[in-house]
Amino acid sequence: MTVQVTVWNEHVHERETESVRERYPDGIHGAIAAGLRTDGYAVRTRTLGDPECGLDPTTIEETDVLVWWSHCANDAIDDEVADRVVEAVHDGMGFIPLHSGKNSKPFVRLMGTSCSIKYRHGGERERVWVADPGHPIADGLDEQFIVPATEMYGEPYDVPEPDRTVFISWFEGGEVFRSGLCYRRGAGRIFAFRPGHEAYPIYHQPEIKRVLSNAVAWAQPTSGASVTTGEVDAVESFDA
Amino acid sequence: MTVQVTVWNEHVHERETESVRERYPDGIHGAIAAGLRTDGYAVRTRTLGDPECGLDPTTIEETDVLVWWSHCANDAIDDEVADRVVEAVHDGMGFIPLHSGKNSKPFVRLMGTSCSIKYRHGGERERVWVADPGHPIADGLDEQFIVPATEMYGEPYDVPEPDRTVFISWFEGGEVFRSGLCYRRGAGRIFAFRPGHEAYPIYHQPEIKRVLSNAVAWAQPTSGASVTTGEVDAVESFDA
Amino acid sequence: MTVQVTVWNEHVHERETESVRERYPDGIHGAIAAGLRTDGYAVRTRTLGDPECGLDPTTIEETDVLVWWSHCANDAIDDEVADRVVEAVHDGMGFIPLHSGKNSKPFVRLMGTSCSIKYRHGGERERVWVADPGHPIADGLDEQFIVPATEMYGEPYDVPEPDRTVFISWFEGGEVFRSGLCYRRGAGRIFAFRPGHEAYPIYHQPEIKRVLSNAVAWAQPTSGASVTTGEVDAVESFDA
Amino acid sequence: MTVQVTVWNEHVHERETESVRERYPDGIHGAIAAGLRTDGYAVRTRTLGDPECGLDPTTIEETDVLVWWSHCANDAIDDEVADRVVEAVHDGMGFIPLHSGKNSKPFVRLMGTSCSIKYRHGGERERVWVADPGHPIADGLDEQFIVPATEMYGEPYDVPEPDRTVFISWFEGGEVFRSGLCYRRGAGRIFAFRPGHEAYPIYHQPEIKRVLSNAVAWAQPTSGASVTTGEVDAVESFDA
Repeated sequence: MTVQVTVWNEHVHERETESVRERYPDGIHGAIAAGLRTDGYAVRTRTLGDPECGLDPTTIEETDVLVWWSHCANDAIDDEVADRVVEAVHDGMGFIPLHSGKNSKPFVRLMGTSCSIKYRHGGERERVWVADPGHPIADGLDEQFIVPATEMYGEPYDVPEPDRTVFISWFEGGEVFRSGLCYRRGAGRIFAFRPGHEAYPIYHQPEIKRVLSNAVAWAQPTSGASVTTGEVDAVESFDA
Repeated sequence: MTVQVTVWNEHVHERETESVRERYPDGIHGAIAAGLRTDGYAVRTRTLGDPECGLDPTTIEETDVLVWWSHCANDAIDDEVADRVVEAVHDGMGFIPLHSGKNSKPFVRLMGTSCSIKYRHGGERERVWVADPGHPIADGLDEQFIVPATEMYGEPYDVPEPDRTVFISWFEGGEVFRSGLCYRRGAGRIFAFRPGHEAYPIYHQPEIKRVLSNAVAWAQPTSGASVTTGEVDAVESFDA
Repeated sequence: MTVQVTVWNEHVHERETESVRERYPDGIHGAIAAGLRTDGYAVRTRTLGDPECGLDPTTIEETDVLVWWSHCANDAIDDEVADRVVEAVHDGMGFIPLHSGKNSKPFVRLMGTSCSIKYRHGGERERVWVADPGHPIADGLDEQFIVPATEMYGEPYDVPEPDRTVFISWFEGGEVFRSGLCYRRGAGRIFAFRPGHEAYPIYHQPEIKRVLSNAVAWAQPTSGASVTTGEVDAVESFDA
Repeated sequence: MTVQVTVWNEHVHERETESVRERYPDGIHGAIAAGLRTDGYAVRTRTLGDPECGLDPTTIEETDVLVWWSHCANDAIDDEVADRVVEAVHDGMGFIPLHSGKNSKPFVRLMGTSCSIKYRHGGERERVWVADPGHPIADGLDEQFIVPATEMYGEPYDVPEPDRTVFISWFEGGEVFRSGLCYRRGAGRIFAFRPGHEAYPIYHQPEIKRVLSNAVAWAQPTSGASVTTGEVDAVESFDA
């Protein structure tokens, strides 16, 4: 059955800055969606400017995996919408926050930490190393790939110890960063992936497209077991 | 240096129900505090009725480890106070939510999950088994201890996979539950401990007192490394 | 592409004890293999009496997932064969040790712990609870299932903290046990599943068959990233 | 009570190579032991040339934490001695393998993986970043420290996902490496720490001494709970 992906983007930089618009004429969401469609996923895009921030209940209900890009507008997401995303993850929806989507309300709420880092705008070189070559999100990659010019993110990255550390980045300016981390929250799978500043054509790189495609496959919901919560009767007899 | 403990209790059942008051004449917080003082900790108590829910900035600032009991008033905690607790944990404060403190705002925010369970009020027998006998929170315990009559909590317990599973409970009515779980969030240590309904004299049990005393020692802050966050200069030179 | 499963069984009890043979006329391996074939897997069976303990290099090479049952003959596996299994897991082969396969040389070597437990032969009732209802190994299950009569395994189970705790068992005699645990070692996925004494028809239960089928799907190899090990040249230039 | 530390060193390079001997006139073990003694630990040293490889049962029995340096003689450790170390770790002894001690028999057996890496002898600069600033092994450190010249180790590092990732290294030649990893195996705590080639005065660096001192404190045994293993009677009555 086809995986239903929603690519969500705040879509601010592309509208406000001509160089970003030239780089991503269909928006960052458009570039990501095009790559995923090529790999056979059913993809829709939504942006902050759509009704209910683009994430109304029906859209969420119909989404298997939500790919999320945000940066300057992280605080502009309605709290109610953020909670809707969090609850959908608990119920099994995959969630893939990209770049400074690490500061988005849904990701911060799912982590329970500050998600703080250090950063630098310098256009430096990043080498993304595969730390977990047996992970399906690394399928088909070489042991590293280069992002020629990017914003740096540096450790310490204040997140819970991850289930798996798939990628660790090296930066020309001397820092390191855990760039691809896997989590489970409730029934949902989360893959936090660092690369992707709006000032660089990172989402056009084939390795990045490959990672996103692999991540969507990995993050899709599974049917799971049935669950009862709340007050229940005893299943074994006893004398109280 | 003496560990500074704050035992916080909503302190509702003891005021409203005579049988609970007789069981805990100094409140659940009083019973817990007395045990910890015997073990040499510096302990203060605070309750929901105190100004700022008992958790004003000064109190939090002076607290190394916060022991927390709550049940019927979980929703009555101010959001701002809950966030203050969460941030203090990020900065290193230990946090020990007891019983339905698992539904408290600070714990749920630190976990990022629903923390849902199944439960039953039946006064049944619980056997608390040590699953991690090498953990310091289990120091001095036998391999199991009995809570003669209690409320049942049953799996699935919707929390992130813990760092360590210290205790797993068996219930007479047929359920199991991970009763003692360790987490780190930011610099802070969290130990979620299940036993302790207000309708039973559980906090008077020597094994429970031992666990709480061990957990406070385990959860106390360490000095850690210094950290820079935000925008930084490069530490290696490069040509952008 | 069809997953290639090898079901390995020491095949001692079935040959030596008539009641076991009546229960498992095709061997425990035959019962397990039949269930997996029904679900569409390509399955072969091997036993300790086959050349090279049934696990020659070609068999291992052709195996995607190895299901393993052993008990009284755990020490009879050649060390070289055990190492071959371990290395195959490192290279990506899935490994599903059942019941006292937890004491098998390959599993103990992959864990690095004693894997010790407590146990009792009493024919008591076991309730296998799903602790991780969002895990694919729990797909299609109810929140618990009953094994009507079995040998008990009790905590503490001396294994490394698992990646995921999928099942926790309740026993009539008062113990608990983490009955389904997930691990990664190298590129390989491991699922240790407790149920299955030879004295009971456990592998004929539909829930058990379902778990094994789910576990094989989960444990199958992925292609992963390419890896270089050993001495390498620098990828960035520097002056030594 | 004073922590009893044994610093074990193969002690081959210092005897065979004059430049190493000049750098470490008392051996690498002597340099490490001197630092730990300054911090108040009771320290003895043992080398491969001592009877039973320096790790006879009495020595092990009296050791709280074993610091281990090995490189060219990793295969020269008796299997029986290696198993003795492994069992002592299971029983609670702390274990701190340094540098290519990652290839030592005890560490490989405790991990259950190949522990393979990539490496380069180039005398390049390493920056050791603190990824977990709240961990006690990072107490008192700045957010990074420099090893001016060293052998490089590069990812992927084939070890199980650690309990905590305390340090991640950046190398001038373009690689990254998880340089400080925490594990539990049985009751024992393990801290694998990368820095320390014999060709460089790394164990004379104050930051390295600080890490080793912190790690010994962290790795010391705790008393734990009592444990029963093997066949046991039921603790609850039932009709079989």
